[in-house]
Amino acid sequence: MLLRKCGELRQRYGIELSVVSITDITGTAYSGDGIDLRLALERCRRGVIDYPGAEEMSGVEAIREIEAELVVEATPSNIKNGEPGMSHMLEAFRAGKHVVTSNKGPLALEYWKLVQEARRRRVEFRFEASVGGAMPVINLARETLSGDRVVAIEGILNGTTNYILSRMTSEGTSYEAVLKEAQELGYAESDPTYDIEGIDTASKLVILANAVMGMRARFGDVKVRGITRITPEAVRLAKERGYVIKLIGEVRDSRLEVAPRLVPESHPLNVGGALNVAMLECDVAGRITVIGKGAGAIETQSAILSDIIAISRRCGG
Amino acid sequence: MLLRKCGELRQRYGIELSVVSITDITGTAYSGDGIDLRLALERCRRGVIDYPGAEEMSGVEAIREIEAELVVEATPSNIKNGEPGMSHMLEAFRAGKHVVTSNKGPLALEYWKLVQEARRRRVEFRFEASVGGAMPVINLARETLSGDRVVAIEGILNGTTNYILSRMTSEGTSYEAVLKEAQELGYAESDPTYDIEGIDTASKLVILANAVMGMRARFGDVKVRGITRITPEAVRLAKERGYVIKLIGEVRDSRLEVAPRLVPESHPLNVGGALNVAMLECDVAGRITVIGKGAGAIETQSAILSDIIAISRRCGG
Repeated sequence: MLLRKCGELRQRYGIELSVVSITDITGTAYSGDGIDLRLALERCRRGVIDYPGAEEMSGVEAIREIEAELVVEATPSNIKNGEPGMSHMLEAFRAGKHVVTSNKGPLALEYWKLVQEARRRRVEFRFEASVGGAMPVINLARETLSGDRVVAIEGILNGTTNYILSRMTSEGTSYEAVLKEAQELGYAESDPTYDIEGIDTASKLVILANAVMGMRARFGDVKVRGITRITPEAVRLAKERGYVIKLIGEVRDSRLEVAPRLVPESHPLNVGGALNVAMLECDVAGRITVIGKGAGAIETQSAILSDIIAISRRCGG
Repeated sequence: MLLRKCGELRQRYGIELSVVSITDITGTAYSGDGIDLRLALERCRRGVIDYPGAEEMSGVEAIREIEAELVVEATPSNIKNGEPGMSHMLEAFRAGKHVVTSNKGPLALEYWKLVQEARRRRVEFRFEASVGGAMPVINLARETLSGDRVVAIEGILNGTTNYILSRMTSEGTSYEAVLKEAQELGYAESDPTYDIEGIDTASKLVILANAVMGMRARFGDVKVRGITRITPEAVRLAKERGYVIKLIGEVRDSRLEVAPRLVPESHPLNVGGALNVAMLECDVAGRITVIGKGAGAIETQSAILSDIIAISRRCGG
């Protein structure tokens, strides 16, 4: 995707992007003149970064030692201690590098520590991709709706559980059967605990509460209930009365809560499949609802790309 | 609203707003030190600008002669020749003043002329409020989704007709009866032609096609059909089959069209009441849908305010 977009960004925004380093679990590829993305992509598909010049260099070392203006941190989210993302981000700030991330773990655990460290080092820190995948919500609230104060947020922030609940509603099947199907289709991890227990939704809710509403919320502040105890009977009864059951995250009046809720069929929060939705209650605009794909390798890059562009435009990169 | 927001903008963004002049049909109020908004508002409610120092000065004169950095153009939309908004905007550009507007007439008629004139004079020109009221769509597409190309747009862009169709669906009553009710409630003008014939939707579609998709569309390019021939029977038949009838504006493959369409009940475009909705088809993010209040004196100020903030932040106002 980035390959295809590089020329477009130059033409539309006058931005020259050069990828000088890529690190994954197997090592670090590096080229001061810019990595040949076509070649790197091809080699990555074989499972290792055997790009010419690839070294056994860790992410932290690469961030510290390789000259670059911006680091894209896209390691898997870890809600226990935020690693390795946390160390990557802090190292990048120390090295005076901007950070764009899709990694919600560190943000859910230490939002204000990270934001303050970025400010102290006078670098930009953006994380649209950490909540809602391709669905824009953080930048929408903070920039597009800059004249408003967001006073409450309700939303479906996890595509896997929404897929499961949508299928339970349309097919009348059991939670276990649909979970198995979701795993076979790749919508659910082999260990789906984070999703189905509401932990993933809770992490994202903490980020929204802090980033959009200026709260000082922590992961432990969220009252969380997942979807594991929802029966086909409950889904059917709801449907008969014109409702659907959805896993809703809500922040309102300093309370953060994740729980299955009855949503009227015609309500904007009733989005199907694996979609995500966020409803922002604004002091001037009233309710603004946004719907988009909450996951997907390609779609999430939309959020990362828009953050890179915003930093580049602001810093004259 | 602005009264309440002035202090907030200072605190959140360090922006000092000073309103030096207000023009309406009765004249122009002016104060180089900043108008006392509380006093002006109170006097406005009596129907005329009898603010101390008010003069019989036209909008064009005020824009040309009064020292200011930014003009908010909020006269009623005129789709025949764009006046008086067109002259106000062009005069502001000539005077080196930024423009924020809610006025769709001039934009639907002469989008590129206005944009190019603003560029030539090196001033900012923003118009989020011209489409969708409080629903952010232009800035959402151009800024929040800056990494994407929008390849098609579908939406409900007129609150009055959506209110009428929503009521016809829920109540089973005739078009004429609901229109009368909408007029009594103030949702529809005494002359509702622009709304019900689809002209208002078509104007907004032209602005979106140009501003979001970079087209060179003109009002005359839109194929327009309104809602006047929709019968209660058609609405009922659709409902029986799980559909609703909505007035949809669509731009796709260089074609612009406004027409009543069948929308599945569970589709994101099925929004009720007087809500607006826009579905953007993006090349990376996929479909992004946004829903918000399409009208309302207070709500629309959200869009005007965010545009003022964006200009102030960019130009170090």
